Amino acid sequence: MKIDINCDMGESFGVYNMGRDEEILDYITSANIACGFHAGDQSTMRKTVKMALEKDVGIGAHPGFPDLNGFGRRYIALSPEEIYELVIYQVGALQGFVKAEGAKMQHVKAHGALYNHAAKDKAVAESIAKAVYDLDPELILFGLAGGELVKAGENIGLPTASEVFADRTYQEDGSLTSRREKDALILDQEVASSQVVHMAKNGTVQSQQGTDISIQADTVCIHGDGIHALEFAQHINQKLASEAISVSKIGTFLR
Amino acid sequence: MKIDINCDMGESFGVYNMGRDEEILDYITSANIACGFHAGDQSTMRKTVKMALEKDVGIGAHPGFPDLNGFGRRYIALSPEEIYELVIYQVGALQGFVKAEGAKMQHVKAHGALYNHAAKDKAVAESIAKAVYDLDPELILFGLAGGELVKAGENIGLPTASEVFADRTYQEDGSLTSRREKDALILDQEVASSQVVHMAKNGTVQSQQGTDISIQADTVCIHGDGIHALEFAQHINQKLASEAISVSKIGTFLR
Amino acid sequence: MKIDINCDMGESFGVYNMGRDEEILDYITSANIACGFHAGDQSTMRKTVKMALEKDVGIGAHPGFPDLNGFGRRYIALSPEEIYELVIYQVGALQGFVKAEGAKMQHVKAHGALYNHAAKDKAVAESIAKAVYDLDPELILFGLAGGELVKAGENIGLPTASEVFADRTYQEDGSLTSRREKDALILDQEVASSQVVHMAKNGTVQSQQGTDISIQADTVCIHGDGIHALEFAQHINQKLASEAISVSKIGTFLR
Amino acid sequence: MKIDINCDMGESFGVYNMGRDEEILDYITSANIACGFHAGDQSTMRKTVKMALEKDVGIGAHPGFPDLNGFGRRYIALSPEEIYELVIYQVGALQGFVKAEGAKMQHVKAHGALYNHAAKDKAVAESIAKAVYDLDPELILFGLAGGELVKAGENIGLPTASEVFADRTYQEDGSLTSRREKDALILDQEVASSQVVHMAKNGTVQSQQGTDISIQADTVCIHGDGIHALEFAQHINQKLASEAISVSKIGTFLR
Repeated sequence: MKIDINCDMGESFGVYNMGRDEEILDYITSANIACGFHAGDQSTMRKTVKMALEKDVGIGAHPGFPDLNGFGRRYIALSPEEIYELVIYQVGALQGFVKAEGAKMQHVKAHGALYNHAAKDKAVAESIAKAVYDLDPELILFGLAGGELVKAGENIGLPTASEVFADRTYQEDGSLTSRREKDALILDQEVASSQVVHMAKNGTVQSQQGTDISIQADTVCIHGDGIHALEFAQHINQKLASEAISVSKIGTFLR
Repeated sequence: MKIDINCDMGESFGVYNMGRDEEILDYITSANIACGFHAGDQSTMRKTVKMALEKDVGIGAHPGFPDLNGFGRRYIALSPEEIYELVIYQVGALQGFVKAEGAKMQHVKAHGALYNHAAKDKAVAESIAKAVYDLDPELILFGLAGGELVKAGENIGLPTASEVFADRTYQEDGSLTSRREKDALILDQEVASSQVVHMAKNGTVQSQQGTDISIQADTVCIHGDGIHALEFAQHINQKLASEAISVSKIGTFLR
Repeated sequence: MKIDINCDMGESFGVYNMGRDEEILDYITSANIACGFHAGDQSTMRKTVKMALEKDVGIGAHPGFPDLNGFGRRYIALSPEEIYELVIYQVGALQGFVKAEGAKMQHVKAHGALYNHAAKDKAVAESIAKAVYDLDPELILFGLAGGELVKAGENIGLPTASEVFADRTYQEDGSLTSRREKDALILDQEVASSQVVHMAKNGTVQSQQGTDISIQADTVCIHGDGIHALEFAQHINQKLASEAISVSKIGTFLR
Repeated sequence: MKIDINCDMGESFGVYNMGRDEEILDYITSANIACGFHAGDQSTMRKTVKMALEKDVGIGAHPGFPDLNGFGRRYIALSPEEIYELVIYQVGALQGFVKAEGAKMQHVKAHGALYNHAAKDKAVAESIAKAVYDLDPELILFGLAGGELVKAGENIGLPTASEVFADRTYQEDGSLTSRREKDALILDQEVASSQVVHMAKNGTVQSQQGTDISIQADTVCIHGDGIHALEFAQHINQKLASEAISVSKIGTFLR
């Protein structure tokens, strides 16, 4: 049994530092590296690509809306064409750094409002999938398990990774509980990591309505900021190991 | 006898239109496409790459300083490291669009203040050359004939193209006459195109001091904006043809 | 009988020119000057303020979403707090240029997607009205006739100007016909100017459903770009004059 | 005997936090608030203005080069005209927030590369001074003691504040020792605060060449980032108090 652990990386910008990237890289297998639109700058991109390579972590592009001030968390009404171009530009830019290091990009994961939007909106999902496919059909497309982006990726012929969350609860329809609801977050580390173990072993998760729903867990997302980020990264690694679930780079076991 | 004609392209931005790209493309062999920092946006980049491909014009990246307001013409005191990263990012982004169209990038030419700076500053020239080499050692690096960038490109092992100007006069030391001098520009089309013919045939140009200096003319730069741009593009094409100088894509005859 | 004619101005950016501001200023009474977020730069702002003063045209700030690439026409999901701050910043910046010329700002008009949003969304409208009021309670707030922004302005105690359009058709509920509908635009100059005359004289407009609806016409918006912009500006001025409707700066007759 | 203590404030941006503004405000009398070009965003500007008012700290605008990525520390070759407009825009924007709170701006201090440039370049200094004067001739202009900006401010008729540094050493010609030299910084708190006391009492400072040079100390700059920032802010306050030097807002005692 295998699972990938991914985390957003390279979100520092200029003098502004974010995250404990170097330490977190020891506990993850795939790094989603910001491409300069919602976070990250050229220097951070280069440095983060190098660090990921040194620690043998799979490199992914993490394109987002052009909104540094809002950290890519605010929806911007772009057309599907504009989203296609946004993804080509950002993934292309990161590919530049990856190529300059003589390496190969593993995956693409959309960020923030673009991620959420792509999980629900078919046209947006298809634009992103087409952009990634046109760039390199071997890139693995990450998306919310059960969401539109994973479907669009499969339809166009991309390898896809269904993503699950350790610290979020699920609704009966497979969606994440909205952060506006009070039971959206799982704050207890043990409960959070157990949810992932359950998903990996059984392919199901218990919804907030009490029913078990099926869910595919190829990769689990953890967060790199916050004071307990590093601690949780260690914790979930140990938990998965103790349950004989191998934490491996998605590129090594997917399909 | 062969020469390439290059022109800056894709400098529109959002609702702002610049240049008569589609028409100019009929008279040039290499297009320097803006990468979003001094001009150009994702949509313009994609459209311009497509147009260049349709017209069989060599595609080049045209990275510049991050200064849309100043159109990349204002010097910014970046370190050599920052310039390396700037070039990787912008060329990588354009490569995304080129790759998405199933094509291959031909060359890289720095823009504006970055171009001028790279012609004179060895450290900056080496940073740019290294960035281009690290991205793809087959890319042709454009630079001012006799300048530092061409030297840096040759030293690192890149194919280089020495660039000459039709409408600028030259100093005895091989540099362009500063635009602050009143005799910097050649306004007469006939004189301008004759200067290029002379360069191509003899490998020399008459300096403002009256002496002939040697100059290598692999590619000649024409300007795409201005009311007479299209007219001059046609004119210099006819002139070169009438002198049996073949106007060809740099990638087809260089080395 | 009096009416104001307003037009968006100062939308050039760096090397990119837009509109025929200097000529249009001869035919309008209020200028909405872009503040650098959707268009305009510091140099354009200063120059446009000076030109408006020379031609005795009322100066207004024209804040928009932070989206130069989309020209402020794309909706961005900002919170009411963020919109308040957005307006303070942009109007404050333009006030700097107005103050530096020893003049006084007359009005504020939101741009593009922000304008449309403020006409329909009460919370957004209230944020804009409060920002303008907090800056200077004597500023005249422009808004779509019958829309939420005019209401919010009145509620907080600002002078407001109800804006009508010459070249747009109206729905029975007072809203503009969506641009997606084929009958949204009035292309005939005579019909367009007659609609404004009718509004000014009768306080009504014929809706696309055939019924007359009441509408307040304090100021009419004309467009400064497009090839017929200048021609129409002249045309509507003559038409209004011939109907004894005085074209006057809004600040001179409102309340 | 009186002295003002100023500190850069409001340098956070979006999700990126910088400095311990709230705590530092307890120990300073003048706050230089970033205006969105080198740091700061609209929300941070508003919040920082409010905090400064609550703690009765003098509010200043802190304009910088348009370079968020470089934090305004990289020189950009702007013309004096462009610098004039840059200052009008940024100070105007901050004035918007100050006015919205019903308060009055006290001073203007240029940031980073703009500050350094203005201390040495007469044309730049005059542009900044003119912009501030045109906005409000009662604003106090901060500048390096003995530098061009203070002179330009005096010449145009602005109140000026000569700024000294606690933690920097001085050269015989009155300039700061370059950060590239190993003796540029004073790391010992006691030495740093004693230097300020000496300046305030005697109007001189000992240069690195050993000679005493005259220096006017109206305001002392302390730094808000770094782990010892808060500690040093407390320390220098106590030191000055123990020497009977009153720490007061510059606006209350200057002229």
